[in-house]
Amino acid sequence: MNNAAKFQAKPVSLKQVKINEGFWWNYVKLIKDVVIPYQWDVLNDRVPGVEPSHAIRNFRIAAGEIQGEFAGMVFQDSDVYKWLEAVSYSLVVYPDPELEKTADEVIDLIARAQQNDGYLDTYFIIKEPDKKWTNLRDCHELYCAGHLIEAAVAYYEATGKRKLLDVACRLADHIDSVFGPEPSKKKGYPGHEEIELALVKLYRVTGEERYLKLSKYFIDERGKKPLYFEIEAQARGNKNFYSMWDELGPSYFQVHLPVREQTSAEGHAVRAVYLCSGMADVAVESGDESLIQACKKLWDNITTKRMYITGGIGSMSIGEAFTFDYDLPNDTAYAETCAAVGLVFFAHRMLQIDPDRRYADIMERALYNSVISGMSLDGKKFFYVNPLEVWPEACEKNKVKAHVKYTRQPWFGCACCPPNVARLLTSLGKYIYSTGENELYIHLYVDSEVQAKITEKEVKVKQQTQYPWDGKIAIDICAEREAEFTLLLRIPGWCKDAKVRVNGEEIEIGAMNKGYVSIKRRWGKDRVELLLSMPVLKMRANPNVREDEGRVAVQRGPVVYCLEEVDNGSNLNNIVLPKGSKFEVEYEKDLLNGVCVIKAEAEREDYGPWGEELYEADVNVTYKPVSIKFIPYFAWANRAPGEMMVWVREK
Amino acid sequence: MNNAAKFQAKPVSLKQVKINEGFWWNYVKLIKDVVIPYQWDVLNDRVPGVEPSHAIRNFRIAAGEIQGEFAGMVFQDSDVYKWLEAVSYSLVVYPDPELEKTADEVIDLIARAQQNDGYLDTYFIIKEPDKKWTNLRDCHELYCAGHLIEAAVAYYEATGKRKLLDVACRLADHIDSVFGPEPSKKKGYPGHEEIELALVKLYRVTGEERYLKLSKYFIDERGKKPLYFEIEAQARGNKNFYSMWDELGPSYFQVHLPVREQTSAEGHAVRAVYLCSGMADVAVESGDESLIQACKKLWDNITTKRMYITGGIGSMSIGEAFTFDYDLPNDTAYAETCAAVGLVFFAHRMLQIDPDRRYADIMERALYNSVISGMSLDGKKFFYVNPLEVWPEACEKNKVKAHVKYTRQPWFGCACCPPNVARLLTSLGKYIYSTGENELYIHLYVDSEVQAKITEKEVKVKQQTQYPWDGKIAIDICAEREAEFTLLLRIPGWCKDAKVRVNGEEIEIGAMNKGYVSIKRRWGKDRVELLLSMPVLKMRANPNVREDEGRVAVQRGPVVYCLEEVDNGSNLNNIVLPKGSKFEVEYEKDLLNGVCVIKAEAEREDYGPWGEELYEADVNVTYKPVSIKFIPYFAWANRAPGEMMVWVREK
Repeated sequence: MNNAAKFQAKPVSLKQVKINEGFWWNYVKLIKDVVIPYQWDVLNDRVPGVEPSHAIRNFRIAAGEIQGEFAGMVFQDSDVYKWLEAVSYSLVVYPDPELEKTADEVIDLIARAQQNDGYLDTYFIIKEPDKKWTNLRDCHELYCAGHLIEAAVAYYEATGKRKLLDVACRLADHIDSVFGPEPSKKKGYPGHEEIELALVKLYRVTGEERYLKLSKYFIDERGKKPLYFEIEAQARGNKNFYSMWDELGPSYFQVHLPVREQTSAEGHAVRAVYLCSGMADVAVESGDESLIQACKKLWDNITTKRMYITGGIGSMSIGEAFTFDYDLPNDTAYAETCAAVGLVFFAHRMLQIDPDRRYADIMERALYNSVISGMSLDGKKFFYVNPLEVWPEACEKNKVKAHVKYTRQPWFGCACCPPNVARLLTSLGKYIYSTGENELYIHLYVDSEVQAKITEKEVKVKQQTQYPWDGKIAIDICAEREAEFTLLLRIPGWCKDAKVRVNGEEIEIGAMNKGYVSIKRRWGKDRVELLLSMPVLKMRANPNVREDEGRVAVQRGPVVYCLEEVDNGSNLNNIVLPKGSKFEVEYEKDLLNGVCVIKAEAEREDYGPWGEELYEADVNVTYKPVSIKFIPYFAWANRAPGEMMVWVREK
Repeated sequence: MNNAAKFQAKPVSLKQVKINEGFWWNYVKLIKDVVIPYQWDVLNDRVPGVEPSHAIRNFRIAAGEIQGEFAGMVFQDSDVYKWLEAVSYSLVVYPDPELEKTADEVIDLIARAQQNDGYLDTYFIIKEPDKKWTNLRDCHELYCAGHLIEAAVAYYEATGKRKLLDVACRLADHIDSVFGPEPSKKKGYPGHEEIELALVKLYRVTGEERYLKLSKYFIDERGKKPLYFEIEAQARGNKNFYSMWDELGPSYFQVHLPVREQTSAEGHAVRAVYLCSGMADVAVESGDESLIQACKKLWDNITTKRMYITGGIGSMSIGEAFTFDYDLPNDTAYAETCAAVGLVFFAHRMLQIDPDRRYADIMERALYNSVISGMSLDGKKFFYVNPLEVWPEACEKNKVKAHVKYTRQPWFGCACCPPNVARLLTSLGKYIYSTGENELYIHLYVDSEVQAKITEKEVKVKQQTQYPWDGKIAIDICAEREAEFTLLLRIPGWCKDAKVRVNGEEIEIGAMNKGYVSIKRRWGKDRVELLLSMPVLKMRANPNVREDEGRVAVQRGPVVYCLEEVDNGSNLNNIVLPKGSKFEVEYEKDLLNGVCVIKAEAEREDYGPWGEELYEADVNVTYKPVSIKFIPYFAWANRAPGEMMVWVREK
């Protein structure tokens, strides 16, 4: 297999990157200092006021060390695995022997819970040992296995310790003995995709082709008729664990068609983007062009028809799901934090296949907006749902919006989102750079440095920037020995005016390489300066998005803004932004950990004195000037609870 | 008791009124010709493609005449009773011996199903005979009894036949033996209000005070602590029939407070307005000022804070319920047809207590808009839900809007709305006029005539009008002998310019009597002409209604208008109505059974050529002139399926 053609760029490993003080450093540190310890307490059922997770306890019971019943979601194990994965990345960034010791102990426990044949899922071990692999559709065994594998690979890469990797391999081998094309094996695939991308990671770290083959099998089998989920359901007497099959049918599970025939992203948004990520991985490793084309189709559908401006996906609460093209209601949005995380995974994979800024732009959009909006600035509270318009009383009293919260919650019974944010942000270093044979790509502008081998020579590249608040990026290149390679700098789609200087001298940008400025030269000790013009943009949605017609969203750089009641008073829908309105950008260092706010002169619609009537004819409408203040969307709901709005009426 | 002070006006009986050819005559005829026969077939399970009602069959089983199981909703009996009530009114308007014979046979069957002690509810007789009166909260026994009583009173008044009235009295007597303040009796009240207003009807027709007392008891007991529903639930081991108690709590049932302490309309909208109607009836008959005050508070809350411009109430699908003040989402609206019918009941009662146009205005608003929008123009299909904005694809694919249909449905498993519309429209004659001691009120302008005794003299009044398409009403008065009385003509709140002529001579309107022009004189053979100026009105909602800000609704006379895709193309939210736009009214006799349409010059927002992107910065917005056409809201969804919108963006 010749993968080079498919895999044009390679992400650098986490160990090669150091994130320095700045926007993202704060987040990585927060995960280490607050989220990881907090989640550890949650997993051990010792946070007062938070519903016990029972996750560690489940492993103890499964290992036969204590007596008890399984408790929590059927996929509760995955919380432990995702925590371990975040811990692994964090250990790379911040070595911490005590945390590593704790992780080792958890790994020992996991190993003890694993059964002799390699099987590992505490729900079935404890509660229904005779029902293993009988309800792939609802019961998340393969999903949990995927998260175990991801954690194992991460921990191995972080520490060099093989114990969890061995557990993962034994489980993967067991799964391989159960599923596959051979007549004796089950023809199944997971209800919640995840194991596909995990198996490719396991293949990459072990070199064991069987894992890649198994991943490809799951992907190829998905959606084939007759549907395995129907065969399986019949075999168990049509007993359901969850009701989503009955409610939303095969598309909820992305099995309405074989994956290569799917042209729109359907069903549960997290599953859909996890599947896409796995498809991209398998495509790259197997050189399967038809899979890449399928990925591209799904990518295009998501990002040009089914994504909020925040990078949020999944516009329907029922099923946490995609609906249809251009259906993006702001106040009943779902836009799960996990789905935004999954979109980053998908984008990152597509970006290696085809280093085009369209992938990096969306990756950045999701990161700066709907991923980090999922966590409070102190790292202690979380949004599962990321709406674009909130009227608190409606969230409380109109049950159609019951899923929308207007304050972040301490933790969730279904705790998928917080550890997902944690594992993504602690591994952020992997998303900034890629290398080609003779190329170094900079996808994201983050105060950071990378050490990479390019054209067989060690090169160190250091970025210094106040991004996303400022568009100036200083890039110092330091090659061990002079090296000729191409430095590719992404010019984000939102930037219409970029300047590049090399050692103080402005260079012609010329035709870009899929949105990347490419500078090919012999590099030694050089400084590149990138200047991204970062005006405030009034964004409009495609006119097919009925909800946003007559409205604009304010964006600066990659950051989408919103109005909050605490700054602007109540009834935000009463505010209109005149077409010619000017914006002022101001960095407020003491606000929300330091953010650029955007101020504008707007108007409030005034109906004059209004009596008792609910409806009136011939109302004289006037407009009163009002100063308004936008804050970054990700930082909303960190002060007084109140209304919030992204899409503001324009006049 | 001196009721005169409370009961300032009295509705005339249906027998005194004749509706002549015109707007409403079409509906009354449609009910007789189409709806009543169709529903009879449904009740007998013989409409292909419609889920069997099983309602008549349930009575046969309960009467011991056939074997079988109960089927249908727990309140299935009420469909038969509501049909009988509609038949009763129809027999007054259109005598029909064959229909009367069918009704007599159904009544015989009902009588045979009644048990010796007077008990009658086929669900419990057939299915849970030992569980009678153990779950008032969920199981609708008293609700069904109420509908039986209403049907019995109507049939007695229509035909003079007592059989069903005797059944109703026996059931009411039985209920009176089970519920009441005496220590041996249960302290309950219905989960779904209805029997309160029915018992007052029974009291009025029989003169039996016990029925009034029992009604008052149900109303007074409601919401007292400890809650009967909790006591009752505990006694049956907390078994639920429906889950609404757990989902929405006491306010769903209007038991969160004693009724006199309730200041806002809460919970299931139909229940709330049925309760209010019963409260008003009891208040009038018992001279209870505190109950009248409670009614007024709830009326004000509904009509000034929780009602759509169409007269629709209940803005939330979950629980078919009220939410909170000014929460009136257009696209997820519930606005059940039955709730609009109930609002007419409530309005009509308040109007007799206090003949103020505020009550008649709302009664008219509901009648012309959200009541008749519930039925297709051919009388064969029905809306349960009456949204103010529809995007068909969203109704199909975004489950948050799954309750919203964009084509009327042939019938419903829970078939409350169609027979409710039928019984209201066939009895419309009762809503047009009231009489006082020396007064004749005209509340509604309907081509009709009334024969009434005023000041001991027979007076005949005949209206001729093309209302609601035209504001000219000719009223001919013909007194048997000259009689001095006051004719009170309602000047609707929407009318800012009215003229009145008596025998060709314009009279000074002067100070109105709560929105009624009063003309006191000796009447013999006289002609009054009323000229209501009926311009097209641009309506605005109270600015606290977040959903409608920046939008206007078009209304002419009592009729609210909407845009439909079939006339205006898709993407209706892209249309903006300039502030100074002019309207043209045109009567189209071949359109939708003949309606006035409203045409206007508007604009479509144009973003120019739009590429593949979902979001774009600095879009140049222009406006292209476009002619648009509004049709009456009630007539939407009678042609090609498509988008619909009431609140249109204003520029």
